[in-house]
Amino acid sequence: MVSVHLENGTVSVRRRGARPRRPEGFALIRLLAAGVCNTDLELQRGYYGFCGRPGHEFVGELEESDTASLRGRIVVGEINLACARADCEWCARGLGRHCPKRTVLGIVKHPGAFAEYLTLPDRNLHVVPRGVSIEQAVFAEPVAAACEILDQVKIPKGREVAVLGDGKLGLLIAQVLQAHGARVIQFGRHRDKLRIAEAAGVVTECRPKHLPSRAFDYVVDATGSAVGLQSAVSMTRPRGTVIMKSTVHGAVPLNTAPVIVDEITLVGSRCGRMEPALRLLARGTPRVDDMIAARFPLHRAAEAFAHAATSGVLKVLLTATASSR
Amino acid sequence: MVSVHLENGTVSVRRRGARPRRPEGFALIRLLAAGVCNTDLELQRGYYGFCGRPGHEFVGELEESDTASLRGRIVVGEINLACARADCEWCARGLGRHCPKRTVLGIVKHPGAFAEYLTLPDRNLHVVPRGVSIEQAVFAEPVAAACEILDQVKIPKGREVAVLGDGKLGLLIAQVLQAHGARVIQFGRHRDKLRIAEAAGVVTECRPKHLPSRAFDYVVDATGSAVGLQSAVSMTRPRGTVIMKSTVHGAVPLNTAPVIVDEITLVGSRCGRMEPALRLLARGTPRVDDMIAARFPLHRAAEAFAHAATSGVLKVLLTATASSR
Repeated sequence: MVSVHLENGTVSVRRRGARPRRPEGFALIRLLAAGVCNTDLELQRGYYGFCGRPGHEFVGELEESDTASLRGRIVVGEINLACARADCEWCARGLGRHCPKRTVLGIVKHPGAFAEYLTLPDRNLHVVPRGVSIEQAVFAEPVAAACEILDQVKIPKGREVAVLGDGKLGLLIAQVLQAHGARVIQFGRHRDKLRIAEAAGVVTECRPKHLPSRAFDYVVDATGSAVGLQSAVSMTRPRGTVIMKSTVHGAVPLNTAPVIVDEITLVGSRCGRMEPALRLLARGTPRVDDMIAARFPLHRAAEAFAHAATSGVLKVLLTATASSR
Repeated sequence: MVSVHLENGTVSVRRRGARPRRPEGFALIRLLAAGVCNTDLELQRGYYGFCGRPGHEFVGELEESDTASLRGRIVVGEINLACARADCEWCARGLGRHCPKRTVLGIVKHPGAFAEYLTLPDRNLHVVPRGVSIEQAVFAEPVAAACEILDQVKIPKGREVAVLGDGKLGLLIAQVLQAHGARVIQFGRHRDKLRIAEAAGVVTECRPKHLPSRAFDYVVDATGSAVGLQSAVSMTRPRGTVIMKSTVHGAVPLNTAPVIVDEITLVGSRCGRMEPALRLLARGTPRVDDMIAARFPLHRAAEAFAHAATSGVLKVLLTATASSR
């Protein structure tokens, strides 16, 4: 089968090898479409010493499973493979995403989704609801990451929220929080990207001369920049909350005095639950169709990675085509 | 009257000048004892461009006030002078400590307590309860800062909490959290200081070779060190909370990846309410008598500052003596 391999920064395509074997409790999934995420680009840059098959945003058709109700269905999947043991504190609390024994699809010790076939435990899978297209469902994972904010922080409806950054995740976060009922103001650098959020009712500011100071009770840093956290803190009112969504390699500088004097809370936020993400997508929120920048068949993954790494490019999809099968 | 003046890093004593005038709603307080805080030493180092009279930890006898019940009483005081206007969002919420129009005793635009007489609004004052000595009551302000943690973060009784740092604030925090019912493990560098916390039941580790990794749901950084925050993050379990109590000048480096991957919450924490602090002191918690390193009369303030700045020295008190009046 065709699969993508990442090693020492090089994306290569392999055509050898059989379909993966399905362990007990696992499903065999035939890939329909996958998304290239910034994390994939970071893996390519070698930040985590990654070597193997990447890919964690996917939609597939379930070919084999012990769960009869899943067979033949179009599914997306939770990317964290938790141990699910009754004596695991994290799994018992429903927080398998933090299970210390977990592997992670396409990131940590479980072969990723950039292949004609992948495996995941049945319990990780979610059937894509009616009305959500295959391409829209590719966004379930990053939309879940945006929804995670609402699982962690109680944001009252009607409250102003600032979102810093207009990359893929920033656009999803702005739209998810707006759909939640917050009044979102998104600060970015690309007028064409911000228009996507504007269409969902988000107020935007493109390259403002000055960011407002101590102006918001809730600020999301989705800049992906080393200075984003400090900007977010400066924009936060006393006793306010900064949600940290920017993974930046290495240490970032943080002036802690305003955090302490203004008693600001900083909340690290990562993956989220799929259920609310799929519910939102079924409602047509966020508007993900506008975020698709390009589509490449799986065997052109190297081009797809290069395109995704180009400044200003939003979501690049990898698709399983008849020719690549 | 005798008062202390701080300018360009120099502590001087003034003997000229009359007692301060008491505005309406304010009390005139005769100083009994005051404490030299690390913030005073930072003011001396010029971090905030401070010029004037420092001092914000104090106990005094109330000489003049419009509130009959306060006259003649021994009092301590909230250091933030809020605007207290009904249309101030912060004051209306009982958070005058964050009022944007506030001045701060001995720190921001209100003459400090290192003088024979000081003024504060009646509403800032708290009568020292029976059984709390004058010297113990000097600790009301820093104990309130320790208690603030419990106002911000719900720490379940019986839960392990790590406190990093064995300075004055670290020792108070460890004892306050232990009294709350947490099982505190304090990490420090001075065996003699840690013994004070041990006497209150706190488990201590002096200069451990390695700090435990991902071991605590709650970690307090009271190191006063630029690397304390990163150490605290490393010691925190997924979904855990770091309480930031270390004011450090300038930017500190923070590796944000573990904060985000483990979804850690960082909570900036500053001053607190006096009421719980005085209740604790009346119960004999924390054991502050052991923390008094030296006493100097007001007119020897320069020596007091120098002594307080010496490594390993805990609380230095300034006292109003008959000779200095």
